[in-house]
Amino acid sequence: MAMASQGPRLLVLGLLLWALRPLGSHAGKLLVVPVGGSHWLSMVGVIQRLQQSGHEIVVVAPEAVLHIKEESFYTLRRYAVPFRKEDMEASFSELGHNVFENDPFLQRMIKIYKKVKKDSALLLSGCSHLVHNKELMASLAESSFDVVLTDPFLPCGAIVAQYLALPAVFFLNALPCGLHYEGTQCPNPVSYVPRSMSSNPDHMTFLQRVKNMLFVLTEKVTCNVVYSPYAQLASEVLQRDVTVQDLLTSASIWLLRTDFVNDFPKPVMPNMVFIGGVNCLHKNLLSKEFEAYVNASGEHGIVVFSLGSMVSEIPEKKAMAIAEGLGKIPQTVLWRYTGTPPSNLAKNTILVKWLPQNDLLGHPKTRAFITHAGSHGIYEGICNGVPMVMMPLFGDQMDNAKRMETRGAGVNLNVLEMTADDLEDALKKVIYDKSYKENIMRLSSLHKDRPIEPLDLAVFWVEFVMRHKGAPHLRPAAHDLTWYQYHSLDVIGFLLAIVLFVAFVAFKCCAYGFRKCFGKKGRGKKAHKSKTH
Amino acid sequence: MAMASQGPRLLVLGLLLWALRPLGSHAGKLLVVPVGGSHWLSMVGVIQRLQQSGHEIVVVAPEAVLHIKEESFYTLRRYAVPFRKEDMEASFSELGHNVFENDPFLQRMIKIYKKVKKDSALLLSGCSHLVHNKELMASLAESSFDVVLTDPFLPCGAIVAQYLALPAVFFLNALPCGLHYEGTQCPNPVSYVPRSMSSNPDHMTFLQRVKNMLFVLTEKVTCNVVYSPYAQLASEVLQRDVTVQDLLTSASIWLLRTDFVNDFPKPVMPNMVFIGGVNCLHKNLLSKEFEAYVNASGEHGIVVFSLGSMVSEIPEKKAMAIAEGLGKIPQTVLWRYTGTPPSNLAKNTILVKWLPQNDLLGHPKTRAFITHAGSHGIYEGICNGVPMVMMPLFGDQMDNAKRMETRGAGVNLNVLEMTADDLEDALKKVIYDKSYKENIMRLSSLHKDRPIEPLDLAVFWVEFVMRHKGAPHLRPAAHDLTWYQYHSLDVIGFLLAIVLFVAFVAFKCCAYGFRKCFGKKGRGKKAHKSKTH
Repeated sequence: MAMASQGPRLLVLGLLLWALRPLGSHAGKLLVVPVGGSHWLSMVGVIQRLQQSGHEIVVVAPEAVLHIKEESFYTLRRYAVPFRKEDMEASFSELGHNVFENDPFLQRMIKIYKKVKKDSALLLSGCSHLVHNKELMASLAESSFDVVLTDPFLPCGAIVAQYLALPAVFFLNALPCGLHYEGTQCPNPVSYVPRSMSSNPDHMTFLQRVKNMLFVLTEKVTCNVVYSPYAQLASEVLQRDVTVQDLLTSASIWLLRTDFVNDFPKPVMPNMVFIGGVNCLHKNLLSKEFEAYVNASGEHGIVVFSLGSMVSEIPEKKAMAIAEGLGKIPQTVLWRYTGTPPSNLAKNTILVKWLPQNDLLGHPKTRAFITHAGSHGIYEGICNGVPMVMMPLFGDQMDNAKRMETRGAGVNLNVLEMTADDLEDALKKVIYDKSYKENIMRLSSLHKDRPIEPLDLAVFWVEFVMRHKGAPHLRPAAHDLTWYQYHSLDVIGFLLAIVLFVAFVAFKCCAYGFRKCFGKKGRGKKAHKSKTH
Repeated sequence: MAMASQGPRLLVLGLLLWALRPLGSHAGKLLVVPVGGSHWLSMVGVIQRLQQSGHEIVVVAPEAVLHIKEESFYTLRRYAVPFRKEDMEASFSELGHNVFENDPFLQRMIKIYKKVKKDSALLLSGCSHLVHNKELMASLAESSFDVVLTDPFLPCGAIVAQYLALPAVFFLNALPCGLHYEGTQCPNPVSYVPRSMSSNPDHMTFLQRVKNMLFVLTEKVTCNVVYSPYAQLASEVLQRDVTVQDLLTSASIWLLRTDFVNDFPKPVMPNMVFIGGVNCLHKNLLSKEFEAYVNASGEHGIVVFSLGSMVSEIPEKKAMAIAEGLGKIPQTVLWRYTGTPPSNLAKNTILVKWLPQNDLLGHPKTRAFITHAGSHGIYEGICNGVPMVMMPLFGDQMDNAKRMETRGAGVNLNVLEMTADDLEDALKKVIYDKSYKENIMRLSSLHKDRPIEPLDLAVFWVEFVMRHKGAPHLRPAAHDLTWYQYHSLDVIGFLLAIVLFVAFVAFKCCAYGFRKCFGKKGRGKKAHKSKTH
């Protein structure tokens, strides 16, 4: 009897052990379709961790791409494209030059439009060469992957995922024109969710809300240039009608590199996972070269200065103004700069071709961070609690800078108009006005106080999609409604029609009743009246 | 030199250690203002874990309350109320009787309305006696708590939190009439988010969407009866104008006992934390009594049957129909039932006054779960992967049952109309049709596949609010907008006015120009015409 009663106990124990099995143990195959340049820099960390979890990873990238190179932790499969790496570099170099040109508004807009059109045509041709590469696509189809991890900034990976009938995980900061809201069916009320590139805060004045609304009205048009050709390409490859919306709604999980210490609180969807700061977890000790710079800085400490991985040269005049401003502070400045050194460079300023940004920001002697306010830099500033002087150049950088400024964690400079004195003032402000340090430390402590590290969270959700072949239980029914159904216009119309019909019938009944009761009398009167005439 | 270079290294190490300090180590003081009855049953687990984390916990509860009793892991402070525990029990007993009465619709609605009005007046008087208990409130004010943890189903804890100027964490399943959406400013499009108690799915037909809209239009009125008196009470106590909305928007974090394997995917807010299944983590081995029942059940296994902690008696006729149905299956049925045993009780049916529901459901010999579809039972069914026969009685139980049925994990019975045969059929269906077991196991595996256990998540967020004295960075700006600003009606009006003005000016200009160009000719013609006459 005693023996017999052990059966259920063992079964319970077995079930418990099964329930507690390490869920990450399912080793699978990931196909990664990344976007090159700075977009790649945080994705690669997640890929490395996924490989360490036992997964096999294949990265497909064009022959001409920035930053994506052979690594031991993935297999790189390159495909031929009709442009060279030099073309990509030239394109970014041109972008770097453009942002420093103080053209009139309209001329600037036309220039941006032309540049976006040119660059996106280049990138589209790259995507076209991938999806039309029969040999590569056939080999990918044979490889039986479990999931596609891709950056939807270029929805090429989304096409590949649909072609291979695989679930997709999107990895991104945000999409231009709020396309990630459309892709997730996430509501984003225009009254308090600032539109990207509007530089609006969440608490807006009436005029800011008007500006926000105007951005909504124009953003659909502006993004069409970049994204609609992908719908055509997808329709061609998948041999059915595909819209941009179809490509974006195909993701099972959206890994968003944002956090609400930086982003303003707003509605989200259940399949959005927030991994802001995923890029600043790992720290290495400084190399001897940088350690020497830091040690030599004395009590004043250092200032870290970088305009990101894509812009490393600036016009001479601007470089000289910056060098002059930097020379006026007692801190040692480490400036990542690959152009010709400005002739007025002060002694406290050290130019370097590359710097270990996150490691330097993590050093207690770092007093300030001069940044272009790209999303990676902003999160590294937050993680390490370093107040910032921001010189946003393009894209979402204006918004990032505005948000940090709103929170009192940095000073925003207009790179076109700023003088040496402006830079000096801004640096002295963030270094000596204690409120900046206090604010960034408060943001830092909020940001780092989380139940699970963003990198682990990213890995968990990629593996979740692999284990369950998607996440359909997180897909809202909104995806299956037309726009007028979503907004209940048909229901409102139907109910209004009923109300009007009832009102009409009630009116007719009343009128009939009125006539019945008073009608004869009225007619009688009339008759009487006519008789009297 | 070697020594000198150790300084920064040690500093970095110190900073790293600081960053990696156990964040849960801050021991604090929690004030818990719970709701009695079944609401308490999952909250108590979180409180126990919080006490284990080193926090001091004070629970305030009325003298007459169900389920809340002295425990070693908190200090219970009771306050006098103008009713007895027997009144509460009688109220629930009455509810239990009402649900089995097959009255015509209108009579039923009137009965429900009267009962809700009566019960909520009773509960309100309890709350009034707490907030007007000067001695207790003064002693609470002196105790310098860090946070108030409360169930906003009765917004009494929200008033206490505001009175003590403390941040609040709300712990709940959902609020009636979608009040939790208002409290969080969470969008909930009526086109695909089913209204509570509508029994609608997320993919609705046109008529279901009409029904959903009608529920929206009526729910504001129905909940006013229960909630508006709390606004009056709060205004009195806090000596300023307070609305229900003010009370609900005061929460820093909303711990919601739901999960998207049960709830339909829909928009959420950053301060909503989903801890569905928090009640079914801990399992104990079965007592000898229950182990003996399970062992004796043989190859057919057992069926667990409970209508929840609040309903334990049912009318004799219904009980006999149920007993007849249960007698027709080969499984042993463990039925929690405190009423007079039905005379036709079959040999396979064992009546018990109480049963360890979650432990029994976790036993591999359990074949089915007959439940009233309360949120606790549903999650215990999901966690343990047991297909369900559901007899929803009131409140959100209809919705829970509908969702499980939609997902093919259970069969829904109308408790008023069902016969013995219906129950037999439903039980045989969920036990022998493999799809039910497969579906519930799929839901179970999705539900249990999460990066962090719901209990740990709940504890983390309570401690987060204690550490940071709230979570203002997760509070959306929507709370500071009027309803017309939120919907941008002022902006739309303004832009429309501009468009109309521009159109008007353009029209006038055109008309003027037209007159200038053709006017004389026209007049000439006219003049000529008049001359000819």
